[in-house]
Amino acid sequence: MLELIDAGKSLSKEDYQRVFPELEIRLGQCQRAAQAAGVPVVIVFEGWDAAGKGTVINRLTQAIDPRGFRVHPISAANEIEARYPWMWRFWKALPAAGKFSVFDRSWYGRVLVERIEGHIGESQRQEAYEDIRRFEQQLIDDGTVLIKFWLHIDRKEQRRRFKELSGRKATAWKVGKAERRQNRRYDTWAAAVEDMVAQTSTESAPWTVVESNQGRHCRAKVFETVVNAVDREIHRRAAHPAAKPRPMALPKGGRARATSILRRVDLGLSLQRDEYDKQLKKLQKRLFELEHHLYVAQIPAVIVYQGWDAAGKGGNIKRLTAGLDPRGYEVVPTGPPTREELAHHFLWRFWANVPRSGHITIFDRSWYERLMVERVEGFCTEDQWRRAFREINEFERQVIEHGTVIVKFWVHIDRQEQLRRFKARERTPWKRWKIGEEDWRNRGKWRHYEVAVAEMLEKTSTRDAPWTILESNCKLYARIKALRTVSEALSRAIRRRRRDK
Amino acid sequence: MLELIDAGKSLSKEDYQRVFPELEIRLGQCQRAAQAAGVPVVIVFEGWDAAGKGTVINRLTQAIDPRGFRVHPISAANEIEARYPWMWRFWKALPAAGKFSVFDRSWYGRVLVERIEGHIGESQRQEAYEDIRRFEQQLIDDGTVLIKFWLHIDRKEQRRRFKELSGRKATAWKVGKAERRQNRRYDTWAAAVEDMVAQTSTESAPWTVVESNQGRHCRAKVFETVVNAVDREIHRRAAHPAAKPRPMALPKGGRARATSILRRVDLGLSLQRDEYDKQLKKLQKRLFELEHHLYVAQIPAVIVYQGWDAAGKGGNIKRLTAGLDPRGYEVVPTGPPTREELAHHFLWRFWANVPRSGHITIFDRSWYERLMVERVEGFCTEDQWRRAFREINEFERQVIEHGTVIVKFWVHIDRQEQLRRFKARERTPWKRWKIGEEDWRNRGKWRHYEVAVAEMLEKTSTRDAPWTILESNCKLYARIKALRTVSEALSRAIRRRRRDK
Repeated sequence: MLELIDAGKSLSKEDYQRVFPELEIRLGQCQRAAQAAGVPVVIVFEGWDAAGKGTVINRLTQAIDPRGFRVHPISAANEIEARYPWMWRFWKALPAAGKFSVFDRSWYGRVLVERIEGHIGESQRQEAYEDIRRFEQQLIDDGTVLIKFWLHIDRKEQRRRFKELSGRKATAWKVGKAERRQNRRYDTWAAAVEDMVAQTSTESAPWTVVESNQGRHCRAKVFETVVNAVDREIHRRAAHPAAKPRPMALPKGGRARATSILRRVDLGLSLQRDEYDKQLKKLQKRLFELEHHLYVAQIPAVIVYQGWDAAGKGGNIKRLTAGLDPRGYEVVPTGPPTREELAHHFLWRFWANVPRSGHITIFDRSWYERLMVERVEGFCTEDQWRRAFREINEFERQVIEHGTVIVKFWVHIDRQEQLRRFKARERTPWKRWKIGEEDWRNRGKWRHYEVAVAEMLEKTSTRDAPWTILESNCKLYARIKALRTVSEALSRAIRRRRRDK
Repeated sequence: MLELIDAGKSLSKEDYQRVFPELEIRLGQCQRAAQAAGVPVVIVFEGWDAAGKGTVINRLTQAIDPRGFRVHPISAANEIEARYPWMWRFWKALPAAGKFSVFDRSWYGRVLVERIEGHIGESQRQEAYEDIRRFEQQLIDDGTVLIKFWLHIDRKEQRRRFKELSGRKATAWKVGKAERRQNRRYDTWAAAVEDMVAQTSTESAPWTVVESNQGRHCRAKVFETVVNAVDREIHRRAAHPAAKPRPMALPKGGRARATSILRRVDLGLSLQRDEYDKQLKKLQKRLFELEHHLYVAQIPAVIVYQGWDAAGKGGNIKRLTAGLDPRGYEVVPTGPPTREELAHHFLWRFWANVPRSGHITIFDRSWYERLMVERVEGFCTEDQWRRAFREINEFERQVIEHGTVIVKFWVHIDRQEQLRRFKARERTPWKRWKIGEEDWRNRGKWRHYEVAVAEMLEKTSTRDAPWTILESNCKLYARIKALRTVSEALSRAIRRRRRDK
């Protein structure tokens, strides 16, 4: 494909001066319109070395309000970034609603330089394409405008530019071994680029190849593409406003069937205090050791707690962490999203909190709130929560790909037990703060939650990230089961890692 | 001093069981009270290796709401952190109002391990103490409770614990060369600790030495100290509520004298278009080169723009950056603080944005808003803006210590010129968005601003961070002066760096 592109395409000075100032004004206008409509815009610049990415990005950002964008220069992952799932650093850089993020190189480095230089193998490349497609799809579904440019110059032009850069004292350092190697292996690179474009051009996120031998033509085409893409999304939104979120309605019938997974839980399971004390001590000692082995093996772990109000999440987490070294774990409580978090994809705040290699992150509530309170109370649209089943599975898959262990607990009690605990909290002076109006209100929607919980458990239990139900009418039983489940999952991961070495 | 401490101090099991559960409940209560009163709490744990920091932090955090705290384990600066002023990573970790930040080791590593291992010299140590004192003073002035613990065990006890740790497979890796060296050089360490305590114990941020041979005693003393310190601050606030912020009043007389610095500015300075074009081209080329030299020399630079509405800050910044490579600079616009930013010290958001080595950060408005709009409109108390003169100078001094170049521009026009530009904006369709009610309102306070600006310029112009006034009635003149000023400041820094090598 690239060989068919006329890299030398040009625009006369007169034509340029006729169209470009107008494009600059239109770009400024369309940024303000995007801001007003809350449209996030992601612009990716990839291209040959010395194709002029820096120059065109500079012109682009000067046409728009500095409060409205951020440029993210991307190079190889540094020592910190390398300890996270590879998409982590790109998630963190995503724009809020109404803002622009401009990527000077991007996640495509994975299937270009990392592939060509042999840092990733064949199966990782396929995985990377898969990750990229899902990542971009999630952004687009969420209303992001995603624009991807390949700045194209031919081999001769690149050589000419390298020579020019090398000739100037200030820029000589820019042409190093890697750059010269790209020119020598121009055809290998071209093949990788073609593969990339073929694998990741979709209707909603197509690649635009920009003929870039001439700066004027390059700038005009880039500006025009951005203006058109943003305008299109703004018009689309005006024509098809999103459905209003609505609180969940109870299914007309079949509720017993819909919630059978919960009805089968044996809440009679219990444990005596002395047996509990004995096992707790043993398991905490074991977990202390596992935390350290995990650190040495650099395996990350995610532990998710979801459950009914007053089911005992907090107390359970305390027993889990009681014996641990605080340098090795973190408890991340999930409250209502802040304004900043609401302006991003709902997974954004959780991506920011995935553990780095060797660390344990315990989520006290999590991304599953999307399928619980947000669904039940109508804090998101039906489209959004329906999509979330897939998005969550995709998210967890990427975390697992990085070698992370995931353990997910549903902390379960029945309705009578909850009432008993609410009342006990109200009676105990130093526990009274734990119970408020909201808890009573949630309790009123018990039947709605039952349906939502059951569907969540069924659709998001996967082989590598299965749900474990903690029968918690007896707290002692639930705690021991949680500690044992975590301990077994971590042991398995450590054994597997040792075996693979 | 340490030799007088009885590291073996202990608490009987009975006494412990009598007091400790009560302390746990009180700690939970005082955290909720701190949350309600918006008191930020910083707890620093320093101590001998194996003194039990991890264990006591774990107990502490388990007594409080996980939504209310964050633990920050500190070790040597990583490759990213090392590229920023050394306090940068600690500023980023400071708690919002009502939250706890628990530091497992801290900024004191600078005057302990870095000093003892010879990573910093004598003058850097003195500077570090100075930085620490000012940092802590700023936090305390801002209403932070700062609690600092030294966990003390004697040499024999440390040796015993190392042996125990080495004997267990899971923990053997914890006792490495550095730890054994600390035990061998126990006396050297003790001397450094004594020096640290002497240099940084202040009335509002005293060190508490905790006898830690016995865990029970250690825990009880830590809990009690935290509870008392937080309670004290909550009571202090109740007894002495902060003064209400009030809009600035005009000084009764002497306004001409107070603003003489502005009256002396020669706004008649101007430049012809052809001369401008010629110089602009030359300076932009020069800046492009300097940006690269800066990168190679790894020198960071901060450029601050403050000025009247419509004085031409934006256009000036555009000319400055037009020729630059976007990978080397960033424009950070400063809007009204977000809720999260308001819950921190006013410098917090600017600390987060100081440039790393080799990069240029251009602030379109900055920390000086404290002395401008926040003072004039009464968005902060009189105490706060009065303190800000010193706090800003201290902040800039630390940024300069890291080798950063600072250039600060006051973009100046007179009142008639502003009116002319406001009206022109209203007439031009694609500039109309730039002018709104707020601009007219600010204009109404021109005389207040004059006084505030003059005082700001006088009190925050320092040898290494001087203000440059840009005479901007003629925009062309102002742009050339700005580019030339930046160019000269960068050249000087690069020459100095080469000479020092």
